[in-house]
Amino acid sequence: MKIIGIDIGGTGVKGVIIDEKGEVYVKDSIPTEAEKGADNLVKNIAAMIENMLSASDISKSEVAGVGVGCPGLIDSRHGTVVFAGNLYIKDYPLSSEISKRTGLSARITNDANAAALGEARFGAGRKYEDSILVTLGTGVGGGIVIGGRLFEGGSSAGTEIGHTVIVENGIKCTCGRRGCFERYASARALTAQTRAAMVKNPGSPMWKTYDKNSVCGKTPFDYMDDDPVAKSVVDGYIKHLACGIVNVANVFRPQVVMLGGGVSEQGERLTKPLQEIVDREIFVGTEYAPVKVVKATLGSDAGAFGAASLWIEN
Amino acid sequence: MKIIGIDIGGTGVKGVIIDEKGEVYVKDSIPTEAEKGADNLVKNIAAMIENMLSASDISKSEVAGVGVGCPGLIDSRHGTVVFAGNLYIKDYPLSSEISKRTGLSARITNDANAAALGEARFGAGRKYEDSILVTLGTGVGGGIVIGGRLFEGGSSAGTEIGHTVIVENGIKCTCGRRGCFERYASARALTAQTRAAMVKNPGSPMWKTYDKNSVCGKTPFDYMDDDPVAKSVVDGYIKHLACGIVNVANVFRPQVVMLGGGVSEQGERLTKPLQEIVDREIFVGTEYAPVKVVKATLGSDAGAFGAASLWIEN
Repeated sequence: MKIIGIDIGGTGVKGVIIDEKGEVYVKDSIPTEAEKGADNLVKNIAAMIENMLSASDISKSEVAGVGVGCPGLIDSRHGTVVFAGNLYIKDYPLSSEISKRTGLSARITNDANAAALGEARFGAGRKYEDSILVTLGTGVGGGIVIGGRLFEGGSSAGTEIGHTVIVENGIKCTCGRRGCFERYASARALTAQTRAAMVKNPGSPMWKTYDKNSVCGKTPFDYMDDDPVAKSVVDGYIKHLACGIVNVANVFRPQVVMLGGGVSEQGERLTKPLQEIVDREIFVGTEYAPVKVVKATLGSDAGAFGAASLWIEN
Repeated sequence: MKIIGIDIGGTGVKGVIIDEKGEVYVKDSIPTEAEKGADNLVKNIAAMIENMLSASDISKSEVAGVGVGCPGLIDSRHGTVVFAGNLYIKDYPLSSEISKRTGLSARITNDANAAALGEARFGAGRKYEDSILVTLGTGVGGGIVIGGRLFEGGSSAGTEIGHTVIVENGIKCTCGRRGCFERYASARALTAQTRAAMVKNPGSPMWKTYDKNSVCGKTPFDYMDDDPVAKSVVDGYIKHLACGIVNVANVFRPQVVMLGGGVSEQGERLTKPLQEIVDREIFVGTEYAPVKVVKATLGSDAGAFGAASLWIEN
């Protein structure tokens, strides 16, 4: 059985053909051209699918279906994109349009869900039934797999873990609330925390030697061994991140929490202190159902692999 | 088809025989006698089951099974009570012991889950596929039904919504964390908030006329129409409660959040302002997947009904 996985991003669309064991037959990518609208996007995705099929010499009769991960609010049951601001798409029947153009059945889910399913099937979660992917990027994204199945919440509109408040009346969030997890634990938040600490401590090594215009989530980690200011930024960030992760773990009780996104590149410098806090704070302790914290392994491939996995039965 | 539902509480055990439509054939209750241990509890439950069967003239061959809601950490897949402090039970195979004594198959779940399933099938959630029961008692309990199915999280150990932090570094919780939802939104928390406001405002009507020893969650609601101090307690409490409810709603996106426990008796004085906050704060608004806030309707019957519902296919 072959499956086609499509991961739609704000600037690029990735495609892959795999089998149920995760063997890759072909990969491809195209620009999203979001500003040209949904029909153009579907036309280009259909063309990429045809290209991948001919490049890999796979016939459509061998293909179980097309899985698509798409940003925004997705109605997976009806195969529609309810709203995807970055793609200028609203109430669009993406599944049926892809089917019309390709003659293949299509399933869709939110891109964060797709990435979580990819990591669960073929990445850091492959040994576990219950896993969560927490992506630390511009925001904090979450995807949840429990009992080997993708959990999307009611109306496939749940798992917005980045928009759960951890600091009541805290920093204003783009979603309209105050104190959301992602205002404290995203890469963008870490960058802001780093800048604030630098401005407050102009004598610190980080302040003295770093190019102020290129401060990012990596900066405090680069300096933490020799700069107490950098170290305190990292420690503070990890406390915020742990707070949200334990919240999610107490609600979903996964066997593993996988960290994705740029910040996760810090590996054990992040996962080790997080593991200590999770072990200390998880509800009723670690004896019955421990929760591991690890780095995700598929990187930017997770979405397309996970989208394809929408066609793999548990 | 008849089903037996058992709801184990700290002081009493409730039993019911219903059919899949929720028609009640017989009810019974016995004291828990927690201090006498698990075997005694099972023996008494088995005797109650025999009594209910003979009182209703139902034969065991008509019974699909026994469903049990039990406090504590439950391994529902294996039918064991991992840990139930109030019952002095640890690692006990409750399902198989009940089966041995009754000759009937048994399934168990956590008591909060059972109550949520009861409300979902036969109570305030019966018109909805996706519902959450939030119980405002000594703590804050949660049970989640998505797509008509009970969601227990990984290892059936999730849905501990009371132990998600909404105030980082806030009030110390019994679970070891700081700032948990239940430290701000339980009936006990509301009582503490009321006492604190009274002490701070000895001139208030609430302070002047209320018996200080009987302050409870009802107190500020009784006075709110004429006492600004009481009103501000209620307003503050509702803000905390709304914070946790929107968090849960953003993660599970239910069609309905049902409030149970003593505080929920306040009805619209609670649900109306909560609905306003939920509608304002829910992720990407109410257009696609609105979330209603209502009072639960089954009261203390929810647990036994929900336990029985473990045998009703979706």
